Amino acid sequence: MKYLSIFFLLSFVIFVAPVEAQIEKLDPEMAKQKKAEDGLVWHDVTEWGVEGRILPDQERKRWFDRFPGSADGTVTGAVWNLSRHSAGMMVRFKTDATAIHVHYKLLSSNLAMPHMPATGVSGVDLYARDADGQWRWVQVARPTSQEIKTQLISGLSPGFREYAAYLPLYNGVEFLSIGVPAGSKFESLEPRQKPIVFYGTSITHGACASRPGMVHTAILGRRFDMPVVNLGFSGNGRMDAEVGDYLTQLDAAVYVIDCLPNMNAQMVKERCVPLVKQIRAKKPDTPIILVEDRRNTNSWILPDRDAHHTANHAALKEAYNTLQSESVSNLYYISGDKLYGADSDGATDGSHASDLGFYRQADIFEPVLRKAMGL
Amino acid sequence: MKYLSIFFLLSFVIFVAPVEAQIEKLDPEMAKQKKAEDGLVWHDVTEWGVEGRILPDQERKRWFDRFPGSADGTVTGAVWNLSRHSAGMMVRFKTDATAIHVHYKLLSSNLAMPHMPATGVSGVDLYARDADGQWRWVQVARPTSQEIKTQLISGLSPGFREYAAYLPLYNGVEFLSIGVPAGSKFESLEPRQKPIVFYGTSITHGACASRPGMVHTAILGRRFDMPVVNLGFSGNGRMDAEVGDYLTQLDAAVYVIDCLPNMNAQMVKERCVPLVKQIRAKKPDTPIILVEDRRNTNSWILPDRDAHHTANHAALKEAYNTLQSESVSNLYYISGDKLYGADSDGATDGSHASDLGFYRQADIFEPVLRKAMGL
Repeated sequence: MKYLSIFFLLSFVIFVAPVEAQIEKLDPEMAKQKKAEDGLVWHDVTEWGVEGRILPDQERKRWFDRFPGSADGTVTGAVWNLSRHSAGMMVRFKTDATAIHVHYKLLSSNLAMPHMPATGVSGVDLYARDADGQWRWVQVARPTSQEIKTQLISGLSPGFREYAAYLPLYNGVEFLSIGVPAGSKFESLEPRQKPIVFYGTSITHGACASRPGMVHTAILGRRFDMPVVNLGFSGNGRMDAEVGDYLTQLDAAVYVIDCLPNMNAQMVKERCVPLVKQIRAKKPDTPIILVEDRRNTNSWILPDRDAHHTANHAALKEAYNTLQSESVSNLYYISGDKLYGADSDGATDGSHASDLGFYRQADIFEPVLRKAMGL
Repeated sequence: MKYLSIFFLLSFVIFVAPVEAQIEKLDPEMAKQKKAEDGLVWHDVTEWGVEGRILPDQERKRWFDRFPGSADGTVTGAVWNLSRHSAGMMVRFKTDATAIHVHYKLLSSNLAMPHMPATGVSGVDLYARDADGQWRWVQVARPTSQEIKTQLISGLSPGFREYAAYLPLYNGVEFLSIGVPAGSKFESLEPRQKPIVFYGTSITHGACASRPGMVHTAILGRRFDMPVVNLGFSGNGRMDAEVGDYLTQLDAAVYVIDCLPNMNAQMVKERCVPLVKQIRAKKPDTPIILVEDRRNTNSWILPDRDAHHTANHAALKEAYNTLQSESVSNLYYISGDKLYGADSDGATDGSHASDLGFYRQADIFEPVLRKAMGL
């Protein structure tokens, strides 16, 4: 047995390891990111807070849960479990460091999905404000293990500037610290108020962005330079009244209700009008945007799927008309047919957006959000 | 030892398996693809050939190698190893089946990279021609093991139509068969002649497209409805004369030389003019397009990296001017600054394009290719 174990170990070393190393040996640009060196000063983000973590003053089961603990047992079990992913969270800080590091531990050892890379599922994605105040991309962590302690980037142009780090989309975070060389200036930045609030499905949740900054909710947050709350729950965005109870506790700039990819026409008929009225009862003036489901990018060749979308769209339009006829004001509507573009190339798997699909979706959302928020 | 083994096995079942299953349980759209059923008729693509596999009549070490066997020992070892990936290959067929299956085995068990999903690294990606003759997306295989035997899609709209399946970008293929239900019509389609030939780096190779149909070489192949040869070699696209020897053996519609991301200014100075003259000597009329390296999407904040790009661009422009002054005709030039777009969001890791970056790059290549080919 002992020799057999050694044999298996050797098999791994001889046959598996060289294959694993191959692309890194052939292409240095594919090499692993550098380990974080010694002599860094680490800043624990829980000391100042992250955007996208709702009701931070309420008791929580885990610091990085999207919901406070009271949601456990009120929202469905699936929504609760998915709410432990850090989808949409973002932390801001200022530093003059010329190298930036992250140290974080993930909730799950599932670092990737077959159609979504580890950078998107489990990465921390860094942006900075440039000299014109625009958010521009810096670097993403490329996770290869559940705990990550890595140099994100070095050789940065000198300057004391603002950074924003987006948290993993399809995984949770147990802890997260930002590391800078000793002697660097570092200033934490408080989470901003009055977010754009998205309630949706796996697409809102972030599938299948290549990195956390590329889900449309993050793109729009940068374009408007506003905080975002991402309540996307993979497979479980279904206009639940129990989620509505949390929506109404937020001081939102606008609500985006984007649940149709997880619903059928009958569910839309039953739930849409009540959810909007539930929000309106507590928030008489906050704009609400209803979003049709994107058509799957292969629905052109799948008659049953296409008919499903057509029925869903009709049900949402009917709900919208009903609400308008009952004088529910400040209501907006986004059609679904072209959310991923006019060709069929905006998704990775038909249902879930690639970065291209998210970018196109952000382009369609942007003017409606602008109008709704009076910007 | 025996009990210890059982303990380890149980640990796996208890602690790992439930986490693995989690997202599939929470979201049915994340479920694995269906296994291929019995009663299918399988069509081995080696019986009629794939596009992008150069000089198919020459002896080969493996059927799905990009190069014939003569390249082993002439091109560098790294280029040879990378040439065993099926990057850019595509096979066409016609069928009236309402369900389509693939059965293939991959060269490497490395199904994904941290910044590129298994769908892109190891997927087979299916398109079809719609009623207007346009290529539109159908479905991609989502690999979870080295051998894949799966139903790609079912419920297809009836009709005898043309399909095209793109092969894995960062992996090789040992065999590949297309499966359709018994009784379906099936017609193989010969590889088309006079391809667009791309010689480049990891970006041409396909990093980091979400699926094989989204690398810019594939997007352009569909837009022009022409065959493509992808000679992208990750980290090793360096204007080698030995690769040039193979370029000149092809009957190309146009050559796209896109090696700068793997070169510095000195190498460009030494190698660009000789490579173009090498091609011109054998191919007096075939258009040649020289492409500057994209700037890394974070080079705005990395002064050293930005200076590297500036020097590379200057060296390529100088080579282009030299060639023009020596009356080398039918030469075209593509600037690199905006290949991934004007914002900083076109790449996954700074260097390698996401689907968004590839789409933007295709948009910039398209008019130059059109002009070069006189279309």
